[in-house]
Amino acid sequence: MNYKLVLQYDGTRYDGWQKQGNTSQTIQGKLEQVLSRLTGEEVEVHGAGRTDAGVHAKGQTANVRLAGVYDAEELKNLMNHYLPEDIEVREAVPVPERFHSRLNAVGKTYAYRLTVDGGKHVFERRFLYLYGKPLHTKAMKRAAEYFVGTHDFRSFCANRRMKKSTVRTIKSITFQETDGILTISFTGDGFLYHMIRILVGTLLEVGEGKRSPDSMEEVLKACNRQAAGPLAPAEGLTLEEVFYQRS
Amino acid sequence: MNYKLVLQYDGTRYDGWQKQGNTSQTIQGKLEQVLSRLTGEEVEVHGAGRTDAGVHAKGQTANVRLAGVYDAEELKNLMNHYLPEDIEVREAVPVPERFHSRLNAVGKTYAYRLTVDGGKHVFERRFLYLYGKPLHTKAMKRAAEYFVGTHDFRSFCANRRMKKSTVRTIKSITFQETDGILTISFTGDGFLYHMIRILVGTLLEVGEGKRSPDSMEEVLKACNRQAAGPLAPAEGLTLEEVFYQRS
Repeated sequence: MNYKLVLQYDGTRYDGWQKQGNTSQTIQGKLEQVLSRLTGEEVEVHGAGRTDAGVHAKGQTANVRLAGVYDAEELKNLMNHYLPEDIEVREAVPVPERFHSRLNAVGKTYAYRLTVDGGKHVFERRFLYLYGKPLHTKAMKRAAEYFVGTHDFRSFCANRRMKKSTVRTIKSITFQETDGILTISFTGDGFLYHMIRILVGTLLEVGEGKRSPDSMEEVLKACNRQAAGPLAPAEGLTLEEVFYQRS
Repeated sequence: MNYKLVLQYDGTRYDGWQKQGNTSQTIQGKLEQVLSRLTGEEVEVHGAGRTDAGVHAKGQTANVRLAGVYDAEELKNLMNHYLPEDIEVREAVPVPERFHSRLNAVGKTYAYRLTVDGGKHVFERRFLYLYGKPLHTKAMKRAAEYFVGTHDFRSFCANRRMKKSTVRTIKSITFQETDGILTISFTGDGFLYHMIRILVGTLLEVGEGKRSPDSMEEVLKACNRQAAGPLAPAEGLTLEEVFYQRS
């Protein structure tokens, strides 16, 4: 039986989603470890978004095919019992065998949170980039408009050897400021490796007055990572939601 | 010059407010260490509430008398720079020499937060008691009414050798439930050692149906720690605010 899992995690302690060699200190590794022990099967958990080290998730979606048939609610409760306190299975539901969390995803929303006041935000600090200075958000909003739509985002891709298409569609980029925290939310059909963090790093330079909003057009055209701004820190990024076609 | 400090901290890593012997892993210890280094003076920081190990603060208030005269804003910024990321000075203001954060406090609000759903609340888990079951909050509210007013709270005091008065006045106890988190807020003129956590532990037994709301009267009358419920865990407790007379 194929199960869809909706997951939440505090990524602070982890080397990201994807298991790598021997380290089990990844979200995928932890999930597979717990599921293997519970079912006695060798399992592979597929995640919709391969979040980087230090990146969090409020609505990561995954799927796992198990030989046995389990009560989904019981599976969820058992997994939560054995998973560490910073990973939670929020939902577990049986899905058709063909469902694949990544290949079937039609969109995702990521949120990037950073501080624009001088505060230390001691209670939320693990989920924020402590940027700490005011920004020209008006200019950032104008710059962001260049990214909305279908574009070749090669300039915003960290993977130099990317052979597949780097064309993606961003549906919306929204800005919200509350209590000294600026949240920039990105919704799109999919995102390249490091794409959101490079977009944020570039938008920050616009907000600092180092780049003009209109220069974003050239940055996109360049199709060169060097044309864009730096990589923003991982801790500010959260995978908020993964969307699927209603079936 | 005497300075009033308003502080915020994530108490998870600390042995509470009060410095004890050699351990500097206390909030008071950290503040004194940083202030000593900054001023070259031997300093003593007085806190309004001596929060226990693991207890948090959103609005702890302290004062410190320094021989030198410092710009309060600069002092605040320097302290924040040298303090760890889980302690923040939110305000620093010069106050009259006679001001004492604890002796002059006329009231305090503490909030106790616990989960009443089965969720792991991965993002707020450090500031919650993961109780995890539904409660009869109606009964708890009725029970809490017995505590509002001026009473001898000896039954709710962990200090057996308490020779001073154990009479305190609770102004209000309020209940609020949002997204599976129940917040019980206590406002009063002052609280005894462990008083709020024992009140919560007792109220939880009411919410579980193990005690009747009306039995609270007897618990108060008993003036005996054995009559009350268990101590609720520290991580759910936060010192929210300290009140002073308007001068």
